[in-house]
Amino acid sequence: MSDTAAELDRNPEDDLGLSPDFVRTVVDRIDAGDAPAVRKLTADLHPSDLAELIELLRPDERRTLVAILGPDFDLVALSELDEGLRDELLSHIGPGRVAEALADLDTDDAVYLLEDMGAEEQRELLNRMPEEERTQIERSLEYDEDSAGRLMQRDIVVVPPHWSVGQTIDHMRESVDLPETFFEIFVVDEAFHAIGTVPLSRIMRTKRPVKISDIMDMDQTLIPAAMDQEEVAYQFEKYNLVSAAVVDEEERLVGMVTVDDVVEVIQEEAGEDIRRLAGVGDEALTDTVIQTARSRFPWLFANLFTAAIAAIVISAFGVSIEKMVTLAILMPVVAALAGNAGTQTMTVTVRAMATRDLVEFNVRRVISREVLVAFLNGIIFAILMGIGVGFIFGDWQLSGVIAVSMVITLGFAGLSGILIPLALDRAGADPAISSSVFLIALTDAVSFLAFLGLATWLLL
Amino acid sequence: MSDTAAELDRNPEDDLGLSPDFVRTVVDRIDAGDAPAVRKLTADLHPSDLAELIELLRPDERRTLVAILGPDFDLVALSELDEGLRDELLSHIGPGRVAEALADLDTDDAVYLLEDMGAEEQRELLNRMPEEERTQIERSLEYDEDSAGRLMQRDIVVVPPHWSVGQTIDHMRESVDLPETFFEIFVVDEAFHAIGTVPLSRIMRTKRPVKISDIMDMDQTLIPAAMDQEEVAYQFEKYNLVSAAVVDEEERLVGMVTVDDVVEVIQEEAGEDIRRLAGVGDEALTDTVIQTARSRFPWLFANLFTAAIAAIVISAFGVSIEKMVTLAILMPVVAALAGNAGTQTMTVTVRAMATRDLVEFNVRRVISREVLVAFLNGIIFAILMGIGVGFIFGDWQLSGVIAVSMVITLGFAGLSGILIPLALDRAGADPAISSSVFLIALTDAVSFLAFLGLATWLLL
Repeated sequence: MSDTAAELDRNPEDDLGLSPDFVRTVVDRIDAGDAPAVRKLTADLHPSDLAELIELLRPDERRTLVAILGPDFDLVALSELDEGLRDELLSHIGPGRVAEALADLDTDDAVYLLEDMGAEEQRELLNRMPEEERTQIERSLEYDEDSAGRLMQRDIVVVPPHWSVGQTIDHMRESVDLPETFFEIFVVDEAFHAIGTVPLSRIMRTKRPVKISDIMDMDQTLIPAAMDQEEVAYQFEKYNLVSAAVVDEEERLVGMVTVDDVVEVIQEEAGEDIRRLAGVGDEALTDTVIQTARSRFPWLFANLFTAAIAAIVISAFGVSIEKMVTLAILMPVVAALAGNAGTQTMTVTVRAMATRDLVEFNVRRVISREVLVAFLNGIIFAILMGIGVGFIFGDWQLSGVIAVSMVITLGFAGLSGILIPLALDRAGADPAISSSVFLIALTDAVSFLAFLGLATWLLL
Repeated sequence: MSDTAAELDRNPEDDLGLSPDFVRTVVDRIDAGDAPAVRKLTADLHPSDLAELIELLRPDERRTLVAILGPDFDLVALSELDEGLRDELLSHIGPGRVAEALADLDTDDAVYLLEDMGAEEQRELLNRMPEEERTQIERSLEYDEDSAGRLMQRDIVVVPPHWSVGQTIDHMRESVDLPETFFEIFVVDEAFHAIGTVPLSRIMRTKRPVKISDIMDMDQTLIPAAMDQEEVAYQFEKYNLVSAAVVDEEERLVGMVTVDDVVEVIQEEAGEDIRRLAGVGDEALTDTVIQTARSRFPWLFANLFTAAIAAIVISAFGVSIEKMVTLAILMPVVAALAGNAGTQTMTVTVRAMATRDLVEFNVRRVISREVLVAFLNGIIFAILMGIGVGFIFGDWQLSGVIAVSMVITLGFAGLSGILIPLALDRAGADPAISSSVFLIALTDAVSFLAFLGLATWLLL
């Protein structure tokens, strides 16, 4: 049984990641407590696949798997896990083993595993590590969370400009403490200031006697260690970087950021924006029901208050609705379109701010563009709604009222859709995080006010 | 004037990209037709910064800038521009110059510039290119849009396994047609099957006589040329790749994808999801007002119909609303909360599908989790709303009705939020593209039906 299981295709061509059959077989063997089969099945898994497998398991199965694998459990897989899971599993593995594994990792990966732990746990692990690695990690941890200093790798290849290509190659052949992979070497002056870089491919193609200073690029992108990771990602994307030097406040080289970490940041930040716009916290599919319900509660609760504002506006026109119930039928249509038009503008704005397409220089032009777009669609939908309402209810005065409300509310929605995220950004807040609450509260209130107000004034 | 202007800081530390002052100065000189100053100001701009500058200009200023720069205009900047702008500017630059520039680019960048052109324009440019480059580009263009074949670079370093490190280095020193930068070399057998890779950093650190077969990695990720770019990005992210071999159907090596192109894909796809969820097409800030209004119209139009369904549901309860106008005041609150709870679930689902955290194996578990979360929040908001309505309106029967409606609609919203994107995905559609239309139509209709229906049945 376990022998045929081990032959199962881990990754058939029509499927990325682990095949459902493979996962099912492993789960089956875990549940049966068949340790040899589990070990055999998972022996050749890439750490990323092992992490994927762990995320698909139930909590009890995860603990069993880690217990079965024991010292064979590849701790590199931990850095690919959701944060909650990572901390849970770390507490199941003895601190001695974790400290050992951490010392073997590149500094950036070790920092990634350590940074979310409690202070005590972190201290315990650091104390168990060799002094050199400990000092490097401690220095990285001094930088702010989500800064380039946390992302960076400290083991880098650094040479003086007067060295030859041959000397450089020999130096690399002799060094032991190099990063696992790297793509360029950094050139520094006597004070360790970053003055240039040479891609490995160029070193490879240059004759040994040539001087490094003759082939180095002096136009490099320097990343200050305090730079936010989102800005680091922007630099990498804009200038198509693969690695970049990280410097301290005196422009001295302290490490490098590599693109694989940046890819992670880009995915994270994109996911953050999309979730924040929808009022979802930093949740993962592996979170429990209670954790998830709790993370979604605040947004729904805020929404309760904004919806109450809309209800108050409507209640001010209770008498009008009693006289003309058609108003109650049509008012959600006006509010729905305004809410959607506002959301469109807001999404484009938040996205353009994230990709830095919207900057100080063009902000006025973009605002007027958005307002024009909103009015243009406002006029089109005013005509469509006006005609529709006129024919369906045979009331051409009501038709006029809804048409005028449409232009007012869609124009207002467009303006709010761009001004709210801009204002949040100016105030130092993330423009994605709560724009929708304010936006929908505003568009709802204005829609009901415009439509019910105009109707009361002109029709009743 | 133009001299001090040239000394303006292009990129002060507190600002990423071009400084507003720099942009303003350039615009000022362009508008004044001061060609020498414009040339001086833009002479040392990185192509990415030149592209950023172009995107910030008005259409007439763009044409003036391109005319002023003439043959000094770095065509590499074109590949960093929004699609619409790229095509516009290409038509201003003579085909002779474009063809020349294309031949100098790596195949992936040349394909990127060519793929969106009209067939005739494309033909004309290809005919002007040297045969070798033309054939390579034509072969890449045969692959589907958004496939790995389009993304890949065809100039790669390929060696047989029996070569030594020294032979490999000498080969690279002698080759002329190598890519601008590369990070690994590929090992193939006689039939050109990809059998291994060696990172440059390892070649660099190994002594010349060592055989390639002794240091190559055999566990490489092979990318089929037909693979969709989104799946390519997933592989890169999951396995932290920097470059990967692209193979044809017979697993023969045809090129490589590098991480800089993948970073672009990840940004694009993340932006696509966020825009599609909000019902915005593939628009750019540089699109005109008419283009933008047109791209947003379809979603608003669809929303008109879904809102009409809600209106029909309400109209069925016109008599109830006339009797009890409080219903009209409270019904948008129920609908707003249900819509938001549904959007939360839908966003998490769409995102989890994009990052492949939601797969066949865990789909049932995730569905039940989402429904449980929805019911849990449904019960909490039922209590909150029930108490609030009871005290405000002094009507504890109405309070009971709204509480029960809350549980029903939030539970329903959670279920729809996960089932709609799943169903769209099963049907082969993008789960992001129109989930919201269906979702809000459903949650609105169910909210009004549950609340007004229960109220009519129990209270009137």
